[in-house]
Amino acid sequence: MTRFEDYLKTCQQRIDGYLEQQFDNNHPGLDRLYAAMRYSVTGGGKRVRPILTYASCEAFGTTAVAVDVVAGAVELIHAYSLIHDDLPAMDDDDLRRGRPTCHRAFDEATAILAGDALQALAFEWISREGSWQADTRLRMTSLLARAAGPQGMVGGQAIDLAAVGTQLDQNALEDMHQHKTGALIRASVQLGALASERADEAQLATLDQYARCIGLAFQVQDDIIDVEIDTSISGKQQGADSARDKPTYPAMLGLDGAHALARSLCDQAISTLEPFGSNAERLRQVARYIVERQF
Amino acid sequence: MTRFEDYLKTCQQRIDGYLEQQFDNNHPGLDRLYAAMRYSVTGGGKRVRPILTYASCEAFGTTAVAVDVVAGAVELIHAYSLIHDDLPAMDDDDLRRGRPTCHRAFDEATAILAGDALQALAFEWISREGSWQADTRLRMTSLLARAAGPQGMVGGQAIDLAAVGTQLDQNALEDMHQHKTGALIRASVQLGALASERADEAQLATLDQYARCIGLAFQVQDDIIDVEIDTSISGKQQGADSARDKPTYPAMLGLDGAHALARSLCDQAISTLEPFGSNAERLRQVARYIVERQF
Repeated sequence: MTRFEDYLKTCQQRIDGYLEQQFDNNHPGLDRLYAAMRYSVTGGGKRVRPILTYASCEAFGTTAVAVDVVAGAVELIHAYSLIHDDLPAMDDDDLRRGRPTCHRAFDEATAILAGDALQALAFEWISREGSWQADTRLRMTSLLARAAGPQGMVGGQAIDLAAVGTQLDQNALEDMHQHKTGALIRASVQLGALASERADEAQLATLDQYARCIGLAFQVQDDIIDVEIDTSISGKQQGADSARDKPTYPAMLGLDGAHALARSLCDQAISTLEPFGSNAERLRQVARYIVERQF
Repeated sequence: MTRFEDYLKTCQQRIDGYLEQQFDNNHPGLDRLYAAMRYSVTGGGKRVRPILTYASCEAFGTTAVAVDVVAGAVELIHAYSLIHDDLPAMDDDDLRRGRPTCHRAFDEATAILAGDALQALAFEWISREGSWQADTRLRMTSLLARAAGPQGMVGGQAIDLAAVGTQLDQNALEDMHQHKTGALIRASVQLGALASERADEAQLATLDQYARCIGLAFQVQDDIIDVEIDTSISGKQQGADSARDKPTYPAMLGLDGAHALARSLCDQAISTLEPFGSNAERLRQVARYIVERQF
């Protein structure tokens, strides 16, 4: 088994390479829209969600399936949500991953449309005819739609909006994150397993437990990075969350408490994977990576 | 056969009734998001797309299938597109169907999220487990996604944005409308036929010819209404298109030329339906309605 650092890089190159090929356009009137879509999707990023999809599929002993389209669809949903999150009416951010945000590089109307287009494209990709059984693909589509929608990611953004400036307790904070980032992370893991066409319902439920833990751990670590890590390393404005009066885990539990929670969630995630034996090694490594990363 | 006016009203009540039941929410943090979604979806409207889905399904002699969810999904896509179209960065409209637009009634961030949520929900509905064969449902999902995305409706909005203030010839104007409104109207017709599970490929192609004609006729008539019909009847600001320097058919062909084009498209649409005999009577009536309506 290759080192995890190499695996991470291989997965990132795989999804980057796939995504870069997907935005060809022959219609001059659509050039600007496609440029904005391509700009937002191919602008780097950790690719945590596609990596989870790959690693989850591998937990069933298969890497041969054309899972790129599924991993790509998840990333389109993530990319669209970042475009809309950055808009003036939302977080009003000028920079994302060290480059101008989509509405800064293009314009606000194009950014709204690029986000809308990426969401539609995600569902086009995942429902497109392919090698999967129709009911597998249908279940993947339906699962992604639910994770992206008002009971999932968009719902989380709405809860987040409503929460700025209010006091949340730890349960409410967790609920927000389980919607806002957790839902799509859980979907990434489920989709990888479904794409293998070898997962039974019990295994899907086990993986969902794993995904719930790492989804939350991901957010706790994000909050820690905001406090601890210098902008030059994290690529994000250090202290931006507290400057915006956003509720965070370090603010709620203290920095030590937040670290302890992240570690505990990582341990829980790893322990749920026991039935999978060595096939789940990549998923274990991803769990550790999520709470050790500094950006 | 009941009068068309009664059929129209029955269809409108059917889809309105269906949609009104779909936005229950138990999560207090999501109340505002759901209120904005419900506000935008249940605010009236002609329901042309759902009616086309119903009428197309009936052309195959069946009304018994639970086609509401499909007609509803199309309407969600339409409703989300109106919310985002009305945003300050887009058309910056304050009124829609005589009521404040979503971002006026709520706020801009909520309007962006409500649109995003409705799009995801459309794909959740149409891909949800149901009585259709999995491959029928998959094809419906994929078709709706393509119609909504960058090669369809969103693409049309991008082409429209790029076209304001420029000179379009008639081909370019038609191309824009075939994306912007045509794609979703064609999808409405295809989805109704697919939902019947009785349509062969030749029949689907014939219906698509019909839909291309009425989709364009719909837009030509919209442009005529903007010029001819008083705001008190149309519910839209008379002359708004020319005030915005939008390219229109009356501006390009004159009012008589635009009327002649609308009638000709309607006639073409009706003549393609010949193989369907009396089963397609509702589709013929919808074609006439589209070019005779005053709002």
